[in-house]
Amino acid sequence: MSAPTATLLISCPDQQGLVAKIAHFIATHHGNIIHADHHTDFTNQLFLSRLEWSLEGFQLSRSQIGTQFSELAESLRANWQLHFSDCKPRMSIWVSKQDHCLLDLLWRQQAGDLPVEIPLIISNHDTLQPIAEQFNIDFYHLPINKESKARQEKQQLALLKQYNIDLVVLAKYMQILSPQFIAAFSSTINIHHSFLPAFPGANPYQRAYKRGVKIIGATAHYVTEELDEGPIIEQEVVRVSHRDSSDEFIRKGKDVERSALARAVRLHLQNRVLVYNHRTVVFD
Amino acid sequence: MSAPTATLLISCPDQQGLVAKIAHFIATHHGNIIHADHHTDFTNQLFLSRLEWSLEGFQLSRSQIGTQFSELAESLRANWQLHFSDCKPRMSIWVSKQDHCLLDLLWRQQAGDLPVEIPLIISNHDTLQPIAEQFNIDFYHLPINKESKARQEKQQLALLKQYNIDLVVLAKYMQILSPQFIAAFSSTINIHHSFLPAFPGANPYQRAYKRGVKIIGATAHYVTEELDEGPIIEQEVVRVSHRDSSDEFIRKGKDVERSALARAVRLHLQNRVLVYNHRTVVFD
Amino acid sequence: MSAPTATLLISCPDQQGLVAKIAHFIATHHGNIIHADHHTDFTNQLFLSRLEWSLEGFQLSRSQIGTQFSELAESLRANWQLHFSDCKPRMSIWVSKQDHCLLDLLWRQQAGDLPVEIPLIISNHDTLQPIAEQFNIDFYHLPINKESKARQEKQQLALLKQYNIDLVVLAKYMQILSPQFIAAFSSTINIHHSFLPAFPGANPYQRAYKRGVKIIGATAHYVTEELDEGPIIEQEVVRVSHRDSSDEFIRKGKDVERSALARAVRLHLQNRVLVYNHRTVVFD
Amino acid sequence: MSAPTATLLISCPDQQGLVAKIAHFIATHHGNIIHADHHTDFTNQLFLSRLEWSLEGFQLSRSQIGTQFSELAESLRANWQLHFSDCKPRMSIWVSKQDHCLLDLLWRQQAGDLPVEIPLIISNHDTLQPIAEQFNIDFYHLPINKESKARQEKQQLALLKQYNIDLVVLAKYMQILSPQFIAAFSSTINIHHSFLPAFPGANPYQRAYKRGVKIIGATAHYVTEELDEGPIIEQEVVRVSHRDSSDEFIRKGKDVERSALARAVRLHLQNRVLVYNHRTVVFD
Repeated sequence: MSAPTATLLISCPDQQGLVAKIAHFIATHHGNIIHADHHTDFTNQLFLSRLEWSLEGFQLSRSQIGTQFSELAESLRANWQLHFSDCKPRMSIWVSKQDHCLLDLLWRQQAGDLPVEIPLIISNHDTLQPIAEQFNIDFYHLPINKESKARQEKQQLALLKQYNIDLVVLAKYMQILSPQFIAAFSSTINIHHSFLPAFPGANPYQRAYKRGVKIIGATAHYVTEELDEGPIIEQEVVRVSHRDSSDEFIRKGKDVERSALARAVRLHLQNRVLVYNHRTVVFD
Repeated sequence: MSAPTATLLISCPDQQGLVAKIAHFIATHHGNIIHADHHTDFTNQLFLSRLEWSLEGFQLSRSQIGTQFSELAESLRANWQLHFSDCKPRMSIWVSKQDHCLLDLLWRQQAGDLPVEIPLIISNHDTLQPIAEQFNIDFYHLPINKESKARQEKQQLALLKQYNIDLVVLAKYMQILSPQFIAAFSSTINIHHSFLPAFPGANPYQRAYKRGVKIIGATAHYVTEELDEGPIIEQEVVRVSHRDSSDEFIRKGKDVERSALARAVRLHLQNRVLVYNHRTVVFD
Repeated sequence: MSAPTATLLISCPDQQGLVAKIAHFIATHHGNIIHADHHTDFTNQLFLSRLEWSLEGFQLSRSQIGTQFSELAESLRANWQLHFSDCKPRMSIWVSKQDHCLLDLLWRQQAGDLPVEIPLIISNHDTLQPIAEQFNIDFYHLPINKESKARQEKQQLALLKQYNIDLVVLAKYMQILSPQFIAAFSSTINIHHSFLPAFPGANPYQRAYKRGVKIIGATAHYVTEELDEGPIIEQEVVRVSHRDSSDEFIRKGKDVERSALARAVRLHLQNRVLVYNHRTVVFD
Repeated sequence: MSAPTATLLISCPDQQGLVAKIAHFIATHHGNIIHADHHTDFTNQLFLSRLEWSLEGFQLSRSQIGTQFSELAESLRANWQLHFSDCKPRMSIWVSKQDHCLLDLLWRQQAGDLPVEIPLIISNHDTLQPIAEQFNIDFYHLPINKESKARQEKQQLALLKQYNIDLVVLAKYMQILSPQFIAAFSSTINIHHSFLPAFPGANPYQRAYKRGVKIIGATAHYVTEELDEGPIIEQEVVRVSHRDSSDEFIRKGKDVERSALARAVRLHLQNRVLVYNHRTVVFD
């Protein structure tokens, strides 16, 4: 399976013959499908699909695929994206002072589990600069307070452009992005340290401890304007007991944070996540 | 292990020598401890403990245990309860129209897994009366609306008294108990069909579906005046995906509801749950 | 979605254009696909797929579907099955003395979660006859020992024929089926009370206890000639600790047995399980 | 809670008054118990306990504790160990070529979650030497083949002595220790990449894939002479499906390997694990 693949993510109003039409498009140009998964949301009469096929022997060039498929897509009134497995996206990780999510992502990328390049780390503190240096990744320390926020976000946007970044991962960044920023750069995954919608906002572990819950969790979601309300990609939980202090909640929580975030980022990078109506379809 | 046991649940301000003092009380009267678990809440400087010992060869009668221990307890400024394994408590199950939690509890009781007698089922509908008949349990149909609620709750309290009930289990009863009722009868376990504090109140599955969560859950808790805010005994979760409609959420949820409730009821009946500061210690 | 659906389960050597061809067959006769999932086993170059489409407005009669699809299937050298959602299969449950799996299946069927008819219960003991009566299901008590086994299996086969049974579920039947029986009736699901391949054969909980494991499990699988070696449909696990005696293993195990079995039976009845090479594809 | 604590792990034949006697010993010298958990194995009539108390204001010196408690222990025919929280044990990690368990342990130690010093890494390959250098830990490359094994194990034992090592952790070391080595150094934790007793020995993921299991796992256990038969400390599992190739089993397995191993090592280092009869009591 070393040949590159093309992946199509598509959503459109449901109608008869959709699978046949799309599969026909691939087959007629000699594409061999290696993954195809379709979902119908009957409430919204919406068809959602992911198809991945080998480019070995495929008779269209990459630009031709887009051009020719767009005709079909238009007739279906479809939203669609096309990705090629050998075009690695570029990801920027934003952190504050905690290192566990950052290290976990860097290790997985190094281990070959995340098909991505990571050229840029941004932080409002300089605590994790040594890790960036160790992994040979450019690090920018952009402290943020009420006054500097707007200015720093402009600087951040400039860096994203300069580094040609496709995806930002907030790996415990602990800052709220402004609507202006979100409008300017839309592809951001955040890890929130609670089982949303329980405990949105600040200090979720302390509040979970106070409430006496028996299970805590973490939620990886796309960032939208409303805090902790974006489409959820992945959630994970772990049991706690009366023996666990709120510090233990934090310690146990780190493990679910890093694994929920890593899985969400991997699913996104494999083009397995399709967002619609404030929710996700995860073709796993 | 067929001899009956005594179980002591105790909480008091922390101080040196507590385990020694309490264990000494048991040992000095020739009790053999078969379970002892202690917990210290350092935030509140509170000692909480559960001790269970065999009554075989124990040199105090049951009434003597209470009398003599109360002296020690007073000197420790302790709250305590004493239970005997051969005194089966009496439980009333309250239901609405759904049968899964009711059936599960009845089956477990019949299988010998719940040390309890179940002489009374109360419902605001008559849907589940056949199940009560099949298990030979008295069933009262007490329809409730805004006007009748106060009157029916009086009737319910009278039945609890008449049947000598120790514990009420709301097995998807779907009605909110009034503060007056809760003041009059305090030992009630409810199963809420969400992972609290997410989605308290009505229609949690529909709201979970709408939010696009990837995990749903159920919460068994003691009932207090504030809706869905009582001390949590047990929680359980199950994964959902985009393939699951809100009806599937309900179907999958039933399984976690019944198992979370069954475990909570069993822990309570085994005197393993100690409530303090709106939270529980579960000595399992 | 009240219109009946057709479900096609198919496996064949992988080649280009398979999805297109099969989807085209459905679309060309005006079938609206409501679920389509495809899997390629690259090790064996095998294409495996499940397609479900609405029969509302479909322009082929049920017999025509088979006839016409068989031509396509032949050209693909495919194995395939066709099922219709309104043709409820008929299931026989076989038990020994334990009731938890039987009761769980009966409840779920009654609750509408299992699309199946259950006209026949067979047991080598009469212990569970009252449950059969309560649910109005015919019950046959066929005691088995070494001498009577061959004779009783003939009787069992005759009953399966008489009752027109499509699926046998061994719900803790605790007897090994002979190769002759398996050759004569091939569609049987068993629940084994361990996390296979750990602890095949007798007394898995006792052996798990002795080994000091920290997690126990249950495995639902199709029955084949080799004991506990059949294709696995579903597995489930639960944590145990040193506090759990082997009796507690058995008690906790019951819960995972019944839920693993119920899920496996449901998946089978929804025609979501495809067996090949001693393994299963589960299109869930 | 910054004052150091003493932790007693003890097992002895069960008898009346054990908790009282041991707790009395602590109380009489003004020790404040912060954790006490007792377990009785009724099959073997064995009492097993862990007590941890603050040394603040305790009236015995560390050497006195041992001397005086040994008298009591002798009268109870007890096995016991005494640990002090401010005496950090020294751990050596042994690896082969895979880095995930090593990195995970090093991160956790650096994050303050593992109360241990790690002065020594040993490997039969030099692949992970850069990680050792990066963390400033001495690294010894001791290649092993049939001929060199006995000689290298002598060298390993010499290093353990030289570095004053208390615990060896085989973090995917992939070599079998000889009985001679095990006789000479007894405190070793291994991570096996299967849910034991399923798939002991080589290539567990390939075998799990071939068997078509739906859940895979990892097992952390003490090393004994019989391969993969030592007392189990911790196990963890993760779901797999037909979509997961055996390479995916390996990738998913890494996550459960590292977390099962990290938890086991932490429990050991906190003196929460008591071994008896080829099994463990984990006082968590």
